[in-house]
Amino acid sequence: MKSHAGIFHILPLGERVQKKLENLIDKYMSQLGASKVSLSSISSQALWQQTNRLEGYGQELFRFADRKDVPYILAPTHEEEITTLVAKTVKSYKSLPLRLYQIGRKYRDEIRPRHGVLRSREFVMKDLYTFDHSLQSALKTYEEARAVYSRLFDELKLPYLVAEASSGDIGGDLSHEYHLPSSIGEDNVISCTDCSYVSNEELATARPIPFQGQSSADGNDAKSSGTQAKVWRGISKDRKTLINVWYPASFADTDINTYALKSVLPGLDSSLEDALPLWQSTLNSSSVSVNDQQPQLLNVVDYRLGQDFANDLKNEPSRFPMLPQQSPVESSLLDAQYITSSTSGEPFNTIRIYDGDHCPRCTSGQLRVQKAIELGHTFHLGTKYSDALGARVQVPPTMIEDNKDLSTESDSTANVSMQMGCHGIGISRIIGAVADHLADDRGLNWPRAIAPFEVVIIPGRNMEDDAATISRALTESSNVFQPIDLALDDRAESFPWKLKDADLIGYPVIVVLGRKWTSDRLCEVQCRRLGLTEFVPLDHLQEHVNKLLSQL
Amino acid sequence: MKSHAGIFHILPLGERVQKKLENLIDKYMSQLGASKVSLSSISSQALWQQTNRLEGYGQELFRFADRKDVPYILAPTHEEEITTLVAKTVKSYKSLPLRLYQIGRKYRDEIRPRHGVLRSREFVMKDLYTFDHSLQSALKTYEEARAVYSRLFDELKLPYLVAEASSGDIGGDLSHEYHLPSSIGEDNVISCTDCSYVSNEELATARPIPFQGQSSADGNDAKSSGTQAKVWRGISKDRKTLINVWYPASFADTDINTYALKSVLPGLDSSLEDALPLWQSTLNSSSVSVNDQQPQLLNVVDYRLGQDFANDLKNEPSRFPMLPQQSPVESSLLDAQYITSSTSGEPFNTIRIYDGDHCPRCTSGQLRVQKAIELGHTFHLGTKYSDALGARVQVPPTMIEDNKDLSTESDSTANVSMQMGCHGIGISRIIGAVADHLADDRGLNWPRAIAPFEVVIIPGRNMEDDAATISRALTESSNVFQPIDLALDDRAESFPWKLKDADLIGYPVIVVLGRKWTSDRLCEVQCRRLGLTEFVPLDHLQEHVNKLLSQL
Repeated sequence: MKSHAGIFHILPLGERVQKKLENLIDKYMSQLGASKVSLSSISSQALWQQTNRLEGYGQELFRFADRKDVPYILAPTHEEEITTLVAKTVKSYKSLPLRLYQIGRKYRDEIRPRHGVLRSREFVMKDLYTFDHSLQSALKTYEEARAVYSRLFDELKLPYLVAEASSGDIGGDLSHEYHLPSSIGEDNVISCTDCSYVSNEELATARPIPFQGQSSADGNDAKSSGTQAKVWRGISKDRKTLINVWYPASFADTDINTYALKSVLPGLDSSLEDALPLWQSTLNSSSVSVNDQQPQLLNVVDYRLGQDFANDLKNEPSRFPMLPQQSPVESSLLDAQYITSSTSGEPFNTIRIYDGDHCPRCTSGQLRVQKAIELGHTFHLGTKYSDALGARVQVPPTMIEDNKDLSTESDSTANVSMQMGCHGIGISRIIGAVADHLADDRGLNWPRAIAPFEVVIIPGRNMEDDAATISRALTESSNVFQPIDLALDDRAESFPWKLKDADLIGYPVIVVLGRKWTSDRLCEVQCRRLGLTEFVPLDHLQEHVNKLLSQL
Repeated sequence: MKSHAGIFHILPLGERVQKKLENLIDKYMSQLGASKVSLSSISSQALWQQTNRLEGYGQELFRFADRKDVPYILAPTHEEEITTLVAKTVKSYKSLPLRLYQIGRKYRDEIRPRHGVLRSREFVMKDLYTFDHSLQSALKTYEEARAVYSRLFDELKLPYLVAEASSGDIGGDLSHEYHLPSSIGEDNVISCTDCSYVSNEELATARPIPFQGQSSADGNDAKSSGTQAKVWRGISKDRKTLINVWYPASFADTDINTYALKSVLPGLDSSLEDALPLWQSTLNSSSVSVNDQQPQLLNVVDYRLGQDFANDLKNEPSRFPMLPQQSPVESSLLDAQYITSSTSGEPFNTIRIYDGDHCPRCTSGQLRVQKAIELGHTFHLGTKYSDALGARVQVPPTMIEDNKDLSTESDSTANVSMQMGCHGIGISRIIGAVADHLADDRGLNWPRAIAPFEVVIIPGRNMEDDAATISRALTESSNVFQPIDLALDDRAESFPWKLKDADLIGYPVIVVLGRKWTSDRLCEVQCRRLGLTEFVPLDHLQEHVNKLLSQL
């Protein structure tokens, strides 16, 4: 329940769901040999300055000062704190690999909190941090963590996608995201219909295919070439470079893939809607300061326009609208550069990926774009934080596999920065996403693994004693079945009201004691998700309910 | 481990202790029919203004604003939030009694954080809030909660004291504190050697006894009476009243019981060390503003000085040093009042309680003053918060026992403010207090209920397989004994190092596989708290260890 904008209280049933999810995560973290800790939510601004993240996070950080005016933040993530803790306590490679995780609250002053706990400002996350003495060992840890994540999401029985991802502000160079496809998702995940290729939108590429309009770009006339080729203008963050993206006229500006552009132009300011006013002011001011870096042009050519077009652009630039109209300078006075292929040398695709594009990994598959909710994320961080915060261990030379980054201190040992990984799971996010994903018009519908109760018993009037008998039958320890976590609805409400409420709450299985119980001693077992209503005698009830639950 | 001043990370063993304590509390809260929730740590200043607590907490609140400049706090307690939540969701007496609790972090910008987690600025508490439709029902709830608290602290096997307490800033008028006597405690608890009287220092009283110097206060001369009576000066918070406390000269100013004074003088500013400079400036300024309330004198007379002294003081004030030396006005110009008995009409004791004072409840007992750590607190809050935040329910007239405070809305129902209670347990505090209480010079010493592991097995060299056998024997399910929560120390460290580390960590029981295992298949079972080392064959091990644990 909302307490303040983007801030929520968890009520009893939600608390039970959260507890079950936490227990599930504890189980899988234990499989990974990870120990649980609990780090303070208050972190100091001084610490975050050491890793240069204080400014990067900007307004997303809740900042405050204590009574002595010492500046603090509410931690949105804990790399700084855990690295400092490990730097203080671990000195020898013998203590590694070390895997520490916590389940706790994080804080992020989101500019647009929305969809309840899906994007809130105070939320619960599991964050695992791993420490290894070498890159090879860290990559092994990363793969183990990935495997555990897959088993965990499997147990939740959700149709999740594992996407190759970029690592954003966290740093590092190996990263995967765990997504649940959802119409209310804020991310786009690209997957192949035939092979295992899955990627988030930032990293996704499509295989270039021959384009219908390709050969007809004759370029004899700037205006007529404009009917085949269009130009989208961007600007660099330093405002010195105008970026012309030349693309087929059959697309629109909104089709431009800014992620792809950023992969070749890290300096591109993708936050701008209209680059032209900024570019005009650059031209006006740069005419004064001659010593400064001169304004330049950068031309990016979509592969669909073909090599002929690219050549024309380079050789006869005056035929093309290189600058916006009413520019105070002529384009021939500006230094111009050209990009016609991606960093890996492949034809450059400036258009965002759409359903039906060709998979870059296999020859037969088509790509599919799905809106999705990010539930978890794994990162290999490398030594970004251990370097900055001095988390180093002594390693004997026989243990050293990757000789970069180490300063030999003696003949026998070396002092190396620990290789770190960070693996998050959004607890609040999963609860919100699962609630949304499995809900129908009658209510929620929890997977067994995190349902507040696996089963609810709803007795008819004056059947309280029978309900108690049935509770005992279902919760009995048995060598075959695990005892069932059940609720008995003994509230002073009407029978139909209780049935409706049970649907709303979304118990996986509902056991009703109704007319058939009175007449034939049969329990009515409802399972809305499987679309089943069956009448079961008491001595088969535990087996029957367990069978249903194993599918949920 | 300290992360910042007064802020701590919990490491894996501490996390296990905390988890066990949380599970223990969950068990007892469930006995009370309380449901678990999880309230946001971020609370709004606007909400706290509605209950007038924003200013009262002063600098103890961590305050901050979000990106839209909305003012928030980090909640040090959750009466405002839970009352608002219940006001929104509960409308009928049929939903009551309602008992909601949470286990979570609280924030208090302590002026002097100390003793690690005993007084930290970010700490974990259990807080239970209760809601009833009538005072009678609320008092029943209060007693049920007290009973559950006692069982809980009993299971921790700590020599706790339950003290009658005042309710401080929280409000309300029925309150108990749960204390662990400890030399590092910051509270004083007063208890009787003979009866069940236990009180915190704020509320404690002692039975007045005839005082040796009582009859000899002849008062013929201010100076000579000064040898029997001394005066301590205080000032009211509004700086308008000088308070003279007359007490026997055999005591010192540091013996003055400011709690007792506050009980008759709620306006006393007990934070001041020296009231005189403030009083001088009051006299100087008040001579100007005539319309304002005039400065006054208030004389409090300790019962030990006797009625004769009190009469002399009243009748011949000029013989006594009514004002500090060098006062700019004469005392005869000021209105003077006299207090010679407590609010309940008993002789007034201005001296703090010391060991050996007489119990106010029984005739034989003597009082004992112990330093103690407050572990828990129960409050009956009444309608302070439900009034302020509109937490009201419809009650039919047949249900109304206490007719105060209700506004009749129709012939058939009344709309009454809910009667609330609040019951806290300091989780971080208990962990710190227990660690301190049971530690000896070899290390910590956990009670079984919250030990990180109940037992550790330390195998000698090359006994790994035997250790696994013994683990299985101890963790086996059995109809007689519960399975034991154990750790197996298989780290690559030396045998003596492991023994020392096990003592440091404070496992209740240590099972060592040493020479006697090799020679006679006997496990060495150590229990430092009970001072026992015994050699036990494998088939008696589970029984033996369980017997030890049941005493710990």
